[in-house]
Amino acid sequence: MNDRLTQQTAFLSEIEKLKTIYRRNRTIDRARFENSAEHSWHLALMAIVLCEHADQPGLDLFKVVKMLLIHDLAEIHAGDTWLYDTEAVASQQQREDAGAETLFGLLPSEQGDKLNSLRREFDARITPEARFAVAIDALQPLANHVLTGRPDDEDPKPHATEVLARKRHIEESSVVLWELAQRLISQSAADGLYE
Amino acid sequence: MNDRLTQQTAFLSEIEKLKTIYRRNRTIDRARFENSAEHSWHLALMAIVLCEHADQPGLDLFKVVKMLLIHDLAEIHAGDTWLYDTEAVASQQQREDAGAETLFGLLPSEQGDKLNSLRREFDARITPEARFAVAIDALQPLANHVLTGRPDDEDPKPHATEVLARKRHIEESSVVLWELAQRLISQSAADGLYE
Repeated sequence: MNDRLTQQTAFLSEIEKLKTIYRRNRTIDRARFENSAEHSWHLALMAIVLCEHADQPGLDLFKVVKMLLIHDLAEIHAGDTWLYDTEAVASQQQREDAGAETLFGLLPSEQGDKLNSLRREFDARITPEARFAVAIDALQPLANHVLTGRPDDEDPKPHATEVLARKRHIEESSVVLWELAQRLISQSAADGLYE
Repeated sequence: MNDRLTQQTAFLSEIEKLKTIYRRNRTIDRARFENSAEHSWHLALMAIVLCEHADQPGLDLFKVVKMLLIHDLAEIHAGDTWLYDTEAVASQQQREDAGAETLFGLLPSEQGDKLNSLRREFDARITPEARFAVAIDALQPLANHVLTGRPDDEDPKPHATEVLARKRHIEESSVVLWELAQRLISQSAADGLYE
């Protein structure tokens, strides 16, 4: 087997693990928590379906989709970080950067560097593609909460004002999707899912 | 909310259900069966990483990725069909076509038509993009079997010769990936996963 294919299959086997990294929100049957792999799939399709609502014209949509497919891979080493867990959020970037170096290092170097660079572009939230991808990533759990109810009844409920504050960056990418996000937050607050 | 966004959010809520459609193979911790949403995520990333091995140059890779992200959505209405269940395979196309009409019909019509047309292109296996996407879809469970062992000890084991016959179409898209597939099949046969 050629060396590149050996490295690529090692990477593709390693990322099987993303299917076992669980988030705080549930699947629609409430039978289990959502994992980061199926979450990433949902985001990629959301971006494809909702791209007309990005305020910036001419986005490179494939770049957005690639970012969303890989944006959580560093969790394989770093674990999922809950947005409202302040302590974990403080160390998140450092933990994920280290995890990403290890993971993307499995690939042929120029291929791993390209994907890791896309991940860093996503995290930096500067380019229009990264802002739109981050907006989609912020929007999906809000829609999921309305459909599935609160992630875990034992968890402290975030305040609706805190949710609004942490999701406000959606507005930087899409006024229409920010309106949708606010409507979803109001609905979950009315349903008692947020304080 | 504008009409298009209402239709798009109805579709994006409906596809939550793909996370509850389970396949025959397991996750790497063997704790549960893999679902079609995380499977689709894995395929999209496999296509991105392995595209250099497609024999046809100049593939439209984004088209391949979009096909793989949507290729199983019709299962929301039709259920997952096991490749080795001959009776279910016979009615699969008809069941999935009907399911897809309903599902993509939730979207604004020109957007739903485009996605459903991509799904039909995938199923027809004629264009280079469809052949490569279908090859990736055939390859992933072979790699997963080697990592996770047999899907279910109660299921009848397929014969290695049948697996080889049903996966042989990979060769039409990529000689290199067909060699990889044969190696994976031999390994699983040696591990006692196939007869």
